[in-house]
Amino acid sequence: MLELCLKPIASRSKYAQVQLRLCQCEKGHSGHCDEFPFLRGFKVSHPLVAKKIERDATMTTGASWKSQDAGPNRILRWVMLLSDEELLGFSIDMKKLKPQVVAKLREKAASYKDCIEVSKKLTWLAYQMLDAPQPSAEIAAYLEAQFGATILGSTTCIVCRQPLSFNLFSEARKGRAEIETGHMNPRSHKAHNVGFVHRECNIAQGQRTLQEFYSWIKEILERAESNPIARNPDVQNPEVD
Amino acid sequence: MLELCLKPIASRSKYAQVQLRLCQCEKGHSGHCDEFPFLRGFKVSHPLVAKKIERDATMTTGASWKSQDAGPNRILRWVMLLSDEELLGFSIDMKKLKPQVVAKLREKAASYKDCIEVSKKLTWLAYQMLDAPQPSAEIAAYLEAQFGATILGSTTCIVCRQPLSFNLFSEARKGRAEIETGHMNPRSHKAHNVGFVHRECNIAQGQRTLQEFYSWIKEILERAESNPIARNPDVQNPEVD
Repeated sequence: MLELCLKPIASRSKYAQVQLRLCQCEKGHSGHCDEFPFLRGFKVSHPLVAKKIERDATMTTGASWKSQDAGPNRILRWVMLLSDEELLGFSIDMKKLKPQVVAKLREKAASYKDCIEVSKKLTWLAYQMLDAPQPSAEIAAYLEAQFGATILGSTTCIVCRQPLSFNLFSEARKGRAEIETGHMNPRSHKAHNVGFVHRECNIAQGQRTLQEFYSWIKEILERAESNPIARNPDVQNPEVD
Repeated sequence: MLELCLKPIASRSKYAQVQLRLCQCEKGHSGHCDEFPFLRGFKVSHPLVAKKIERDATMTTGASWKSQDAGPNRILRWVMLLSDEELLGFSIDMKKLKPQVVAKLREKAASYKDCIEVSKKLTWLAYQMLDAPQPSAEIAAYLEAQFGATILGSTTCIVCRQPLSFNLFSEARKGRAEIETGHMNPRSHKAHNVGFVHRECNIAQGQRTLQEFYSWIKEILERAESNPIARNPDVQNPEVD
């Protein structure tokens, strides 16, 4: 593991009082402090990918609309660690939100440190996708010091385990993300628990942990195979195959 | 199969010119004509279930909001068989809709006859759920003449094949339907192809046919089992199990 600079980075965000953002450059680095030095490559070559990694790592997902009871659209995950009372100080009234929305937001809460680690892990995984650009020697060394050697083409969807192509990121520009950040346990936002997933795999996994998902589909197959026709006499109709 | 009355039922709907609604009572029946005589029991005991069956059988699903480019919220499935030109006569301008919306609406199109058959099949299946009310002798005879003997408790989710309880319908009242109408082939709205599904099973199936879905999850399990750890060294971390 590298020793990091960790100097606070000046910010005028109202949430700076909750958590100072810290420089993640190597200790004794030259140049200015930077919270996401490992994203510098993508910021130049693939700015939307850099943005997505930073956003998925640090922000909750929210409703795609804004309304009183839908809750904030996206918010820093560590802000969601605050109490209802503390949040009132930021004009967020959790008591006005529907219980399901509160549960969803609270479930996405994560410490600042975990979010930063997640962003590093996602960057490391993105560089190992098929068709990914090569990281600079500096970025490769930074990420490999934490997560191990990079192997191009080794990043798979954490759900279906098929290799992911970096090109899937660009589909996102056409409106519908084909690739999402996923969690082996949907309720734990930590580096060892995150990865990339196909959108449809993420949807199929739903709120299950990966192990629960695999058990679930295994049981489905067992039931379907032991009783293929059941009460649906036409299930083997060629039309529905 | 019963011989049916099939007399047209008077209607002031603007869509009556597209398709007359037909009496589905047995030929020579007494009393007034009725398009859904097999739903009379549910209409009294479980009106929301009756409504759901009629709606799912005859209407497209649409966006949950109304807007120019989201398309009509719900519309009769057989109206979606009309050409773009004919639809203009009903103030539906398909050319103003996004291509994905058009595709979705057209895919849900079905003939009047198929929709009616679907509503009968769904009624027959609902009566065979665990905890379902008993049909009147008349309704049971009507449905069994078409689909065969009813066996209480034999209706399973068409995707996961677990028995479905009639009580799941009542969850729908609390906002989120736990049970939905599903299609073994999502692009074919015919009686032999429909059944009930858990909401989450329907979501997992997505646009795949049932056979495609089973093949897909089988391959996922094979990959997950042959390479359980992959590039995610902590996948077996107890926390994510």
